[in-house]
This record gives sequence, structure tokens and C-alpha cells, in this order.
Amino acid sequence: MKGLFISFEGPEGAGKTTVLYQIAERLKAKGHAVTVTREPGGIPIAEKIREVILDADHQEMDGKTEALLYAAARRQHLVEKVLPALEGGEIVLCDRFLDSSLAYQGFARGLGMDEVLAINLFAIEDHMPDCTIFFDVPPEVGLERIWKDQERERNRLDLEKLEFHQKVYEGYQEVIRQDGDRVRTVNANQPQAQVVENVWEIVSSEVILHKDS
Amino acid sequence: MKGLFISFEGPEGAGKTTVLYQIAERLKAKGHAVTVTREPGGIPIAEKIREVILDADHQEMDGKTEALLYAAARRQHLVEKVLPALEGGEIVLCDRFLDSSLAYQGFARGLGMDEVLAINLFAIEDHMPDCTIFFDVPPEVGLERIWKDQERERNRLDLEKLEFHQKVYEGYQEVIRQDGDRVRTVNANQPQAQVVENVWEIVSSEVILHKDS
Repeated sequence: MKGLFISFEGPEGAGKTTVLYQIAERLKAKGHAVTVTREPGGIPIAEKIREVILDADHQEMDGKTEALLYAAARRQHLVEKVLPALEGGEIVLCDRFLDSSLAYQGFARGLGMDEVLAINLFAIEDHMPDCTIFFDVPPEVGLERIWKDQERERNRLDLEKLEFHQKVYEGYQEVIRQDGDRVRTVNANQPQAQVVENVWEIVSSEVILHKDS
Repeated sequence: MKGLFISFEGPEGAGKTTVLYQIAERLKAKGHAVTVTREPGGIPIAEKIREVILDADHQEMDGKTEALLYAAARRQHLVEKVLPALEGGEIVLCDRFLDSSLAYQGFARGLGMDEVLAINLFAIEDHMPDCTIFFDVPPEVGLERIWKDQERERNRLDLEKLEFHQKVYEGYQEVIRQDGDRVRTVNANQPQAQVVENVWEIVSSEVILHKDS
């Protein structure tokens, strides 16, 4: 793969999406071709799968069905959008990827991180992100940010109890324990401008490393 | 599980569906509670997943996306329909199950049988059929039956080339090599009344074994 694949991860309200766009602008200003995406990424098949997952009528949905559907949508988004961009030499910034499934479904929902990893490796094969940036913010701070933000539309996960978000946080910590080389942690409990600088440091060094490799 | 779970497998045109209904009638006549089903089995979530799989607009669908979607639909059908029937002590006759994915997607489509098995074991856990009946008919005979049957609606798989159906057949042979205790083979290249008798022999002995266990 000629391109560079970076995923942004973290609990709700960590501020990763806003920071991601600022990083993308800086990269573009330096002349890099950048693809900003998040699953399902406008891929019709992945959008359709997401509709099935989120349909309010689907109260009977089993946790494992949901995990398999997320893996299916991830596969299609990867094949149709991420891989072509990487093959074209672009920098792909992806808002959430594999680790979200590990933390949310594998750990917090109790499906098992190894099991959820296995079906996701079937989906992504060896296309792990080159680097993952974890936005580290205590779950109660993240939740408070969401609740203060009047303009933000609340989704199903935002409304989960604090206890669930604490489990998600623990799940991420477990991912970092297991794959600390890939995952770089940024303190997201500081002013946004500072978070952007810290993320920029990591991303720009990855870009240099990648060019040299 | 108090019930008995039997799957019916085989290439296209093997006649398994017709035989399955006759076996169900015999079981009912003997006073057994029977559930006859096939995926997606009228489960709304599984039906929706199947719509995504079969949508003619989805030409871009990747083979692994498809395999994950089948596993997701299988999970939901299992949880909502098969397991409750088994818990209620019923005999469940299921037209195609796990082995179809192994033969069609794992082997014939080349995704790898072990890999397809792994995502399906995530979906079904230890709920393997107690017994699987394989309808053994040479692929060219099965295809000829389909083409002669004017009333049968042709689906996408019926129209695949003979070469593909031969691969499916090989895939089933591989399943049998690996799991010969579970899979019982019936010669389906004989008059239907004889096939019914042979299947009945297997099913009724399974029912007796199950009662004694």
C-alpha cells in the first residue's frame, strides 16, 4: 500500500471528529492528498447494512448479529473506499475503525474482544491502520461535553448510562495494552488547540516515517 | 437442549426441500412437534439482511461482506426461531444451514472453508445440528432437474455454470471428510419415494437415539 492509514478512536465526546478535520486541513495545506471518512462512508451497501443495525423496529437484534453486521459494513467500506484511496497513495483519516468494535461490542457489551477481533480480521485481513490515535478523556468528562452541547443530535449510544461508557473506556485501555505499538494516546482533556498540536505531532512524524519507508 | 436439530443439505436440484416436507408430515403423524424452517425463516431482521444480499443494485458486494451478512442472518434466525423451538422440545428441520456457507462460499467461491467456519461458529456457538442429511446427487443431474422443472423459479445460483456447481459438490465432500459423524449421506439419485424412505430411516433412528439420551 502506497498510502497511509490512520484511525481516530476514543469514547463519546472526546472531540476526535473536530480535531480530525483540522488535521486533514493541515495535511492538505502541505500538499498531501487526504481522504476523510467514517463508516459507512457513503458506500450504498454499507449504508444499507447500517440502516438494518439502527432500525428502531429491530429491538430483537442479538449482539452477535449486530457485531457481524458491523464487520460486514466495515469490509465493504474498506474495499470500496479505504483501499482504493491507499492504493492511490492518499492519507486516509478514518473516524473510528476496528478498535471501536473491540471496545464497544467486544468489551462493553461482553461479546469477547478476541472473538470480535477474529470476525473483524476476517473482514479487514491485514489492512490494520498504520497508526491509531486514541483520544484519552475520562468517560464522565466526555459525557458532560455531549450533554452541554445543545446542537449535537443525541444518538442511541450517547444515551447509554455512564457505567457503559466507563466499560468502553476500559475496553480501549485493553486494546492499548495488547497493541500499544500501533495505538498512540493523546490527552484529550485539555484545550482543543493543544489536542490538535499533540495529534499533529504524531501524524506528521508518521507521514515522515512513511515517506522514508 | 431438549429438542432435535436436523439440517438438510445438498446441491441445487437434489430434491431436499420436497423430501423435508414429507419427513415433517410423517413426524407430525407420529405425534412429534415439528418446526420446518429455512433461513431467513420469516425473521424480520434476517429478511432485511437477505434483501441487502440479494439486491440486484449491489453489484459491488464483496464476497467477504456477503459471507458476514449470511452469518448475521443465520445468527438471528437461530436465536429467534431455531433455539426457542429446540428449547420447547421440538424437532427442527432446517433446509440448509452452516454447511451451505462452507460449500458455497468457503469452497466454491474460494473464501476458505476454515475462515468461513470461524465466523459461522461465532454466529452459532455450539448449536451445531445434531444431524445433517446430505442429499448426494451428481451436480449435472441436479442441474438437469432444475432445467426440466418449468414451474421452478430460477434464482441466481441456479444460473451459475456447471463448473461452479461441481465445486459446491466438492465443498460438501470436504465437509463430510471433516465432520463425517454429524453428516449422513443419502443417495438422492433414485426415485423420490426411495429417497424419502432412506431419509426416514436416518431421522427416525435419530429421534430414538435422542429420546434415549
